[in-house]
Amino acid sequence: MKTVRLGIAGLGTVAQGVLDILASNQQLIATRSGIDLQVTRVASRTPKPDVNLAGAQFSTQLADLYADEQIDMVVELIGGEDVAYEFIQAALAAGKPVITANKAVIAAHGNTLLSHNAAPLRFEAAVAGAIPIIQAIQHGLVANRFEHVVGIINGTCNYILTAMQEQGAAFADALATAQELGYAEADPTFDIQGIDAAHKLAILLGLAFDSPFNFADIYIEGITEVTSADIQYADELGYHIKHLGLARLTDTGLEARVHPTLIPKSQLLASVNDVLNAVLVKSDAAGNTMYSGPGAGGAATASAVLSDVIGLACQLPQQDTPRSVDASAVRVLPIEDIRSAYYLRIPTKDEPGVFAQVANALSSHGISIEAAIQKEPRAGQDLVSIVILTQVVQEAEMAAAMTQVQSLPQVQGSIARIRVETLD
Amino acid sequence: MKTVRLGIAGLGTVAQGVLDILASNQQLIATRSGIDLQVTRVASRTPKPDVNLAGAQFSTQLADLYADEQIDMVVELIGGEDVAYEFIQAALAAGKPVITANKAVIAAHGNTLLSHNAAPLRFEAAVAGAIPIIQAIQHGLVANRFEHVVGIINGTCNYILTAMQEQGAAFADALATAQELGYAEADPTFDIQGIDAAHKLAILLGLAFDSPFNFADIYIEGITEVTSADIQYADELGYHIKHLGLARLTDTGLEARVHPTLIPKSQLLASVNDVLNAVLVKSDAAGNTMYSGPGAGGAATASAVLSDVIGLACQLPQQDTPRSVDASAVRVLPIEDIRSAYYLRIPTKDEPGVFAQVANALSSHGISIEAAIQKEPRAGQDLVSIVILTQVVQEAEMAAAMTQVQSLPQVQGSIARIRVETLD
Repeated sequence: MKTVRLGIAGLGTVAQGVLDILASNQQLIATRSGIDLQVTRVASRTPKPDVNLAGAQFSTQLADLYADEQIDMVVELIGGEDVAYEFIQAALAAGKPVITANKAVIAAHGNTLLSHNAAPLRFEAAVAGAIPIIQAIQHGLVANRFEHVVGIINGTCNYILTAMQEQGAAFADALATAQELGYAEADPTFDIQGIDAAHKLAILLGLAFDSPFNFADIYIEGITEVTSADIQYADELGYHIKHLGLARLTDTGLEARVHPTLIPKSQLLASVNDVLNAVLVKSDAAGNTMYSGPGAGGAATASAVLSDVIGLACQLPQQDTPRSVDASAVRVLPIEDIRSAYYLRIPTKDEPGVFAQVANALSSHGISIEAAIQKEPRAGQDLVSIVILTQVVQEAEMAAAMTQVQSLPQVQGSIARIRVETLD
Repeated sequence: MKTVRLGIAGLGTVAQGVLDILASNQQLIATRSGIDLQVTRVASRTPKPDVNLAGAQFSTQLADLYADEQIDMVVELIGGEDVAYEFIQAALAAGKPVITANKAVIAAHGNTLLSHNAAPLRFEAAVAGAIPIIQAIQHGLVANRFEHVVGIINGTCNYILTAMQEQGAAFADALATAQELGYAEADPTFDIQGIDAAHKLAILLGLAFDSPFNFADIYIEGITEVTSADIQYADELGYHIKHLGLARLTDTGLEARVHPTLIPKSQLLASVNDVLNAVLVKSDAAGNTMYSGPGAGGAATASAVLSDVIGLACQLPQQDTPRSVDASAVRVLPIEDIRSAYYLRIPTKDEPGVFAQVANALSSHGISIEAAIQKEPRAGQDLVSIVILTQVVQEAEMAAAMTQVQSLPQVQGSIARIRVETLD
């Protein structure tokens, strides 16, 4: 039996989850892995709360963790960005292997941190909580060339869109319920604007496409513009609207984008509801494999943290992250170069010939209509909605067409447009 | 760069898949893993077909593989049971690490084979094809105590049940189509009788519950008795019928059973259709995680084989399979001790008072009715169908109640009964 001593930085819900799992499953883990895992020190900048540390020492100095020669590995669960980044850097420099759940730090600084060779760094918990998606990409599918990685990777957005879909709730009401239930923060900006999903996509993209983590090049839209009318019209057309992170290798470069997306109801991913996360991976040999589960929560995230801890403790050299990453190998495409089908909802006056004018405008930009429905005015309104599914079109053409349609005198108010992915 | 030389036994579709993947992705694998993988010898008892072996030597003697000192690892893709078992034993005894896709051998002889300490044995490809479910259980969820493992683990059965559900096809017609499409063997017995699923469940169960592989104790039903009427009635009640392998730890022991099962449509598992496989794992920290993808096919299975090869090549000690398995620790329950809710379809004469008599018979065995629908006779028939969902009941009580209901003079023909799982 090999004893491995952990130091934990931070004492929030995930740290608590790690302590709880070890309290109940320490013996089971030892039987399975041959590792006797012990938390010997916990450090948090705030004074020790009333938490059972199971005999671990407590200190308010984070540096105590990597200064402690008895500690074999450090788990970073501070959260935030700057302090956590500095801490991870210092711990690696001190030769301590680091396990982190911090997606913001990895997305922004992962390339720098992984170039340290002093000690290994693992971050399974940074993407999709309990789901071992990083291991699936790096180990289970290691022999595959990846075509796309598409994920519902923000539980808050998925909860809100599911509530809008199933209960017809308005965005603001669904958000308020999510906040009441603890599924959204008091300040939900990071989640509903897509920043959190983009952090995770940056990590998935780097691993799947053997490229650097590249948060800055990801195109990001949140879910704040999605209305329950859009969800209902999409449903009539055979689609659900999900907030996706999508990375896809094309002949011209890499698509990397986060936005609300129509996906066919027949896709398994379309049935991933509430706060669940799921990542669909298409690769050349394995085909479409999908991984789903809880994307957040103390115990679920701690499960992923401990998987990394035990893996490192057993020394899994294969999991060592991007080697020989060639920054010039894949180019992330600017959003104007993306090709996508579109859902359009165009509010217009109820006059004859409007549909023909819209169709002509689209046609003049080479945009074909796949399906269309015209919706009568809602009670108390005098505008009709022309709802159109387009065929695949280049983003720049769509932007130009939208300017033209928007300028039609019958069009009143702004046009809703949401991308469609069939995930073939 | 470390060179690793493979010997492959067998030259069917999976072996072909391994050769194909290496032909296209050898350089990518080397970049990711630091391993230069080379197939140096292929052995098959039938003479060499017209296949590009990319420079590998060919022999018709399987023993040449483990006798070859240049070979670092042996991949067993012979199929069948006896010859493959002997081959794996001999290769391990010769000190060669073995990777196999052979579920029948692992389910029946895995305990013996894993007790050899001469060399490691890996079998990710034996369960659910491309899906890295064994790695998820053994590594991704290593810190978890498992509550249940439930899988759609036979693509043939899932294809047939999906066709019956979506097209209203009869069993025989759906089977014939599956055979035409190559989704079912000419002799489909192993698949449609549930043997193949039970092999896979035996493996999942052993790994998740740290117990021996125990194929003999698994209760097995196939899908041959499922009718399209049952599927339609289940649909009306809010369920899909899936062929599941289910292992669940209860206070009294381990449930281990393979049978058609009603699961609520709201469960993601209920949306896993066609030849797709999926495994739903419930564990204490990670909660419900699900893994889906192609469960068969040359390339998909080869993807899993190569994951094991590369993992072993990098020496993943953590993945070494059941240590300290205590055969007395968990007892597989006899089917009579299982508790389950039931779907019943009872064909009766169209007479007043029949439903009351059925309900009385159930009630006398302590069985409560959750929902019931009565179906008028189909065209050309004079029997009605009483369809009942029961509450959870012990298997032995249900068996006794069925004997009583079957003996009612109004009941004509045999009663269909299918278990219901809500997978909470």
